[in-house]
Amino acid sequence: MDETLIPTYEGPVCPVPLHHEDQIVIGHGSGGRMTHELIQRIFLPRLSNEAILAGNDFGQVDLPEDSHLAGRLVVSTDSHIVKPLFFPGGDIGRLSVCGTVNDVSMSGAVPLYLTAGFILEEGLPMDMLKKTVESMQAAAAEAGVQVVAGDTKVVEKGKGDGLFINTAGIGWLPEGRQIDGAQARAGDVVLVSGTLGDHGIAVLGARGELGFETDVQSDVAPLNHMIQELLKAAPHTHVLRDPTRGGLATTLNEIATQSSVCIWLEENNLPVHPAVRAASEMLGFDPLYIANEGKLIVIVPAAEASQALACLRQNVYGRNAARIGEVRSDPKGRVLLRTQIGGTRILDMLAGEMLPRIC
Amino acid sequence: MDETLIPTYEGPVCPVPLHHEDQIVIGHGSGGRMTHELIQRIFLPRLSNEAILAGNDFGQVDLPEDSHLAGRLVVSTDSHIVKPLFFPGGDIGRLSVCGTVNDVSMSGAVPLYLTAGFILEEGLPMDMLKKTVESMQAAAAEAGVQVVAGDTKVVEKGKGDGLFINTAGIGWLPEGRQIDGAQARAGDVVLVSGTLGDHGIAVLGARGELGFETDVQSDVAPLNHMIQELLKAAPHTHVLRDPTRGGLATTLNEIATQSSVCIWLEENNLPVHPAVRAASEMLGFDPLYIANEGKLIVIVPAAEASQALACLRQNVYGRNAARIGEVRSDPKGRVLLRTQIGGTRILDMLAGEMLPRIC
Repeated sequence: MDETLIPTYEGPVCPVPLHHEDQIVIGHGSGGRMTHELIQRIFLPRLSNEAILAGNDFGQVDLPEDSHLAGRLVVSTDSHIVKPLFFPGGDIGRLSVCGTVNDVSMSGAVPLYLTAGFILEEGLPMDMLKKTVESMQAAAAEAGVQVVAGDTKVVEKGKGDGLFINTAGIGWLPEGRQIDGAQARAGDVVLVSGTLGDHGIAVLGARGELGFETDVQSDVAPLNHMIQELLKAAPHTHVLRDPTRGGLATTLNEIATQSSVCIWLEENNLPVHPAVRAASEMLGFDPLYIANEGKLIVIVPAAEASQALACLRQNVYGRNAARIGEVRSDPKGRVLLRTQIGGTRILDMLAGEMLPRIC
Repeated sequence: MDETLIPTYEGPVCPVPLHHEDQIVIGHGSGGRMTHELIQRIFLPRLSNEAILAGNDFGQVDLPEDSHLAGRLVVSTDSHIVKPLFFPGGDIGRLSVCGTVNDVSMSGAVPLYLTAGFILEEGLPMDMLKKTVESMQAAAAEAGVQVVAGDTKVVEKGKGDGLFINTAGIGWLPEGRQIDGAQARAGDVVLVSGTLGDHGIAVLGARGELGFETDVQSDVAPLNHMIQELLKAAPHTHVLRDPTRGGLATTLNEIATQSSVCIWLEENNLPVHPAVRAASEMLGFDPLYIANEGKLIVIVPAAEASQALACLRQNVYGRNAARIGEVRSDPKGRVLLRTQIGGTRILDMLAGEMLPRIC
């Protein structure tokens, strides 16, 4: 070049702030050099793959080789706002991967790819972000999915709550699978893969809001491998759903409405961890309305119920699986519970707000 | 049924709060009845389609009919945190759709589906949410994409900033298209689709932070249709990218690094709206570092540059398109600007933070 180079001009900027190595500052959301350094330092080493490494605002990915003949995409999204960010049995990183992997899987699809959008509050310790991303990496490896696109924004202190993570997921549904909330039929059997309410109580315990100690661990887990095994054992499965926000009762109400059936539960058969039962009784909670993050409701024709239950129990995330009820024709859209003393209670959808908020 | 029905029990809840019809309350994030009512009242009427109406935690969608032979998926995500939520020329709803439609489109892919994750702050006026979703509906219709999965969370007052929206997008890339930041080659021509810095100045003006009035409108727009036209006129296009956060200078630095080339700009040719230029001069901003939300950088072989420019200028979003520079071999990874007085300035990536934050 024959032109004279004027010394580097770095644009209309403030000096790089102090402390930007050990906590999030506004500049990490600038889109400029600090954002790039954050990505290089925190995200890429842990979420590296061909699509991410290309460094574009999009990830290019392939569908499975056997998918090009017939089938559909399945898409889901979930934002995660849990407090505290780390709790017994899990953290927001594991939650953000498992939640979306599970939502995609409830269609019977094989989850393949995730996107991750981070909203960081100024002042978030860098170490917490690093541990969160490490946890996402481990959960994604366990589930066998790749994070192929990401985004990071930073909000001023007091305009966020430490860290929010949104994930979206994409899966492949082989042709012929029809599993959703509208497929429950009278005569079907209702199974659940394990104890109810563990996640919610673990989070409240971690916040110190129970007023006593508990050793309850969150159940947060990716359920996709267990589901693919289940669909081999019980290929005519009608409904799969994870009872997250609103708990088992709210989720079954959604299914009863979508399928226009009655779901009938036996209280005696509902698996609840003794510590969750004790905490709920002391605080006036009902475990049937408390969030789970690694549990599966299975509604299956009676002829396949036994092999479905046996299959769940062979899986590490289904050891406490139980047959909890059945599907009847009427009253349509209702969930009924036969209580331990032989009465019948209508289990309605969660109304108003459940306090304290868990997610 | 022969069992006695005990009157409806609605779970362990607080009474439904006052004002929940005209503003967001914590119960709207419960996952129970209030969440369902919010979805029924605000989201479904505006974002309705087969996948959403099915009422599952996932949306099932098809790929285009001609896609089953060869090609790839393209995936992207973006979180939107703009303040104020409504500004001249756009709002957070339009932004959240266009941002992700554009990111997917920068690969040359046809965007098909979006997911939307809402993080609402307690107290958000219901009317603002409604207008935002209406704006998303209009932008999605313009772009020709469907929102096929959604999620809503509510955070306590003071733990958010009114409304954050994350969108993720999925598109289909026909086989043979190879457009990304690593494809720029010496000899290529650099085009931009219009004036620089409009979005950032419009947002600052709406905040009252300029200290004077301006009639600058945000350029927020979906660019996918213009890009598909461009790729017919200039099928060997090497790079497409939208200069959002960090502005033109930061985006071109990314490309120069990815492609290991030098990008050489002519300051005289850079289109800047006179009002943006005036505001920038008064405040010490550089329009080359200010965010755009409806602009496109095109890097194309010289042989196709004229038809590419003509094609852009025929589009409503490309009327002010200009040829702004060229790609050279050295110095690699650098962006250089020949100034109006004939000197040469190194345009570096945005360092530190740009104040005030725009996105």
